[in-house]
Amino acid sequence: MQTMVVTQDILSQFKHIVGEAQVLADEETLTEYGHDETEKLLYIPEVVLKPGSTEEIAQIMKICHAHRIPVTPRGAGTGLSGGALPHLGGVVLSLEKLNKILSIDERNLQVITEPGVITEVLQDAVKEKGLFYPPDPSSKGSCLIGGNIAENSGGPRAVKYGVVKDYVLNLEVVLPTGEIMWTGANVLKNATGYNLTQLVVGSEGTLCIVTKIVLKLIPHPQHDLLMLVPFASIEKAGAAVSAIFRAGFVPSALELIEINALQIVSQMVDSSAVPVHEGIEGHLIIEVDGNNLDVLMQEMEAIAMLMTEFDAGDILFADDAQQKAELWKLRRRAAEAVKLEGYTIEEDTVVPRAELPALIKGVKAMGDQYGFKVVCYGHAGDGNLHIRINHPTIKNSHGNPEMTAILKELFVLVKGLGGTISAEHGIGLIQKPYMETVFSKTAIQLMRDIKKAFDPNNILNVGKIFDSKD
Amino acid sequence: MQTMVVTQDILSQFKHIVGEAQVLADEETLTEYGHDETEKLLYIPEVVLKPGSTEEIAQIMKICHAHRIPVTPRGAGTGLSGGALPHLGGVVLSLEKLNKILSIDERNLQVITEPGVITEVLQDAVKEKGLFYPPDPSSKGSCLIGGNIAENSGGPRAVKYGVVKDYVLNLEVVLPTGEIMWTGANVLKNATGYNLTQLVVGSEGTLCIVTKIVLKLIPHPQHDLLMLVPFASIEKAGAAVSAIFRAGFVPSALELIEINALQIVSQMVDSSAVPVHEGIEGHLIIEVDGNNLDVLMQEMEAIAMLMTEFDAGDILFADDAQQKAELWKLRRRAAEAVKLEGYTIEEDTVVPRAELPALIKGVKAMGDQYGFKVVCYGHAGDGNLHIRINHPTIKNSHGNPEMTAILKELFVLVKGLGGTISAEHGIGLIQKPYMETVFSKTAIQLMRDIKKAFDPNNILNVGKIFDSKD
Repeated sequence: MQTMVVTQDILSQFKHIVGEAQVLADEETLTEYGHDETEKLLYIPEVVLKPGSTEEIAQIMKICHAHRIPVTPRGAGTGLSGGALPHLGGVVLSLEKLNKILSIDERNLQVITEPGVITEVLQDAVKEKGLFYPPDPSSKGSCLIGGNIAENSGGPRAVKYGVVKDYVLNLEVVLPTGEIMWTGANVLKNATGYNLTQLVVGSEGTLCIVTKIVLKLIPHPQHDLLMLVPFASIEKAGAAVSAIFRAGFVPSALELIEINALQIVSQMVDSSAVPVHEGIEGHLIIEVDGNNLDVLMQEMEAIAMLMTEFDAGDILFADDAQQKAELWKLRRRAAEAVKLEGYTIEEDTVVPRAELPALIKGVKAMGDQYGFKVVCYGHAGDGNLHIRINHPTIKNSHGNPEMTAILKELFVLVKGLGGTISAEHGIGLIQKPYMETVFSKTAIQLMRDIKKAFDPNNILNVGKIFDSKD
Repeated sequence: MQTMVVTQDILSQFKHIVGEAQVLADEETLTEYGHDETEKLLYIPEVVLKPGSTEEIAQIMKICHAHRIPVTPRGAGTGLSGGALPHLGGVVLSLEKLNKILSIDERNLQVITEPGVITEVLQDAVKEKGLFYPPDPSSKGSCLIGGNIAENSGGPRAVKYGVVKDYVLNLEVVLPTGEIMWTGANVLKNATGYNLTQLVVGSEGTLCIVTKIVLKLIPHPQHDLLMLVPFASIEKAGAAVSAIFRAGFVPSALELIEINALQIVSQMVDSSAVPVHEGIEGHLIIEVDGNNLDVLMQEMEAIAMLMTEFDAGDILFADDAQQKAELWKLRRRAAEAVKLEGYTIEEDTVVPRAELPALIKGVKAMGDQYGFKVVCYGHAGDGNLHIRINHPTIKNSHGNPEMTAILKELFVLVKGLGGTISAEHGIGLIQKPYMETVFSKTAIQLMRDIKKAFDPNNILNVGKIFDSKD
């Protein structure tokens, strides 16, 4: 499938640009950069490059453009849709060395950062100034902000604060041709030309390589309160979610986790934070935040009261920072825990939030019908349900016709509920077969034409999101 | 410059599609649809069409695509950048008959609407259900929601609630070729393919015609409080703006209005709501909203206290709904009032908010240097300053080399402050000469290529935002 295209002469040019130490082709490195967190997939690239500046990236891209060498840009490799997999070989371009926060503008509540900064490092740095960058994917301790831009990441706080796209003001990018440009301006409102910034956010590294990022910040809320609410019925938990918004509350997090996912992760991290009760199908994790503690207490009480209408069990209120951290750890490590337990296939479905119960019911029925185990958890407040599948024999959906047919059926259900394939993980390599379930051929062709406008020689992360041709 | 392209045969086809009564070519209609609110410009189209459905629009576009007839889509004609001006003649396609709110989904907090609904009508309809669609341009009583999508409109509430793009979930559009498609899904988070929805928002009717709109709604806040704060120095008012955010407040509106603008509009609407004081250069209008009145009172007091650090004068607190409405009327009608007074040239500059004082100072100096009067007002919380110019002899910037040179200088200043040309009015016809001041040639060429992907025969609102060629 893949042919070697990086000649010795091209390798020498790369070494000249980034220095010999940043051009890696040993087996260990190639294997490390040949996989991400997606299923059990591995594709070995020809070479891994670790440039240290925009200018170096521009020079690399000019060479790859001229020689039509496939380039796969890569953050921390925490992706779940295979966006960073070098399935065509060629060059893996790691952004990890562009790891500086360039400036925190306290006057304008903005930060300018390179893409290789770990999301949590960025959040902590701005928090020290009393500022808040809310999007926090579960992998925030290891993922890179550049990868978050590529996938338009969300996380628990999206329900109140929005996703990555809502914070990106301006981007410096290197086009596949090696040209360098800014997409917008460092302003909160912008009606100046097409929104190239928003087009690049979520484009999964297929249009250009992001080299500088200007993010909006907001004042950090002073308080937050957290509670864990058990439900005898997972569908009632889903119904409770939309009731919370309908009653006028906007929690800063509203997470759903099925009991078996919680048990698996509790075991993995050896936690007894959640008491085990009989007859509980799942929990909601509900957080409110703001600057007035009394108001937050009232809100929590009112939400707790509302939950009783949905047969909620005894509510656990997190008493202190440690208990909050414990609960969040359980939620954040769910993906990792269930994957270790054999739930290797992950879907990132999203529906209008009131349709969650129908989605949960539907996917359970599919599990019964096709003989796989399924656990659900996710950002219920946004209608974003992560569905993890543990099939007795099929561990990768990618390239497997049987699982592909099952997932097509799932996405037909999702589409019918007004939803779509991915809320925050992207399409990457493995969700491509389902694009025509949710988009018309016309829309996909438009995406291809846009790709061509950015990447005329079709070299940058080719074959992600959709198949593109020269 | 323009040649007649709509033949009798094509006219007959149009009549067959939309009915004879919706094909208008009388002089009065052509004149009415030949101008919008931009400067003093008029371009007479050949024909005005008023289709009543997506399907009719698709049929019209197929004909125009085949015959390469220029089409200018039009909402209510309230635009300020000439986006709806039919400067190439041809067809004006009015969306006014697609004026139905199709459904308000109270379970999912969404509304599906046609583009021809007046923004305020939409807001009132969802408010009846306790729901809130925040973006409210000053023209909300007459502008259409479809036009708001085209321009990515903002308005006073954007500072807390965001602009139109933050509420658009999904769009049904007709491409210039006549194909019909949806751009996304009805979900709050979406990482499924390129963000065509966000690409269409703010594309000023150059990429496609929006025929159905799915908007996110939020619970309507129960209370709001409003105050008017006078400042002896307009630059100090600007400085006060960024101090409010830095102190952790997020007002639901934070407007700046210079004293001469306020005087002009007070005269026009015969209002005595604002007491006249000596030595006042401008006011801030500050609103907070939420569900807890006590908390809001505390916030208002704290903000009022903070304002004293910037030499604020006696603060006027709006006592009741009527007084609030009176103050908002003064702000909302400022554009209309100053235009009648001779301030015909309007700029929609936006900078990072802490740079507002520098921008105000700069533009005043330019007025002195080049001999024009200038008033400023706008959405200071977003750094969005509307600059109105009253030149003794030049009433249109469009096509005037002297004023174009002056405005170029203004935008060099804006760009230097990290800002850009337009926050919410768009580029349209009249801001085109300044695009290269804020964007690289590479970025503009990308926009042209995107335009071509949507509109291969180059017929839809051609010559807006940038010059495009077949």
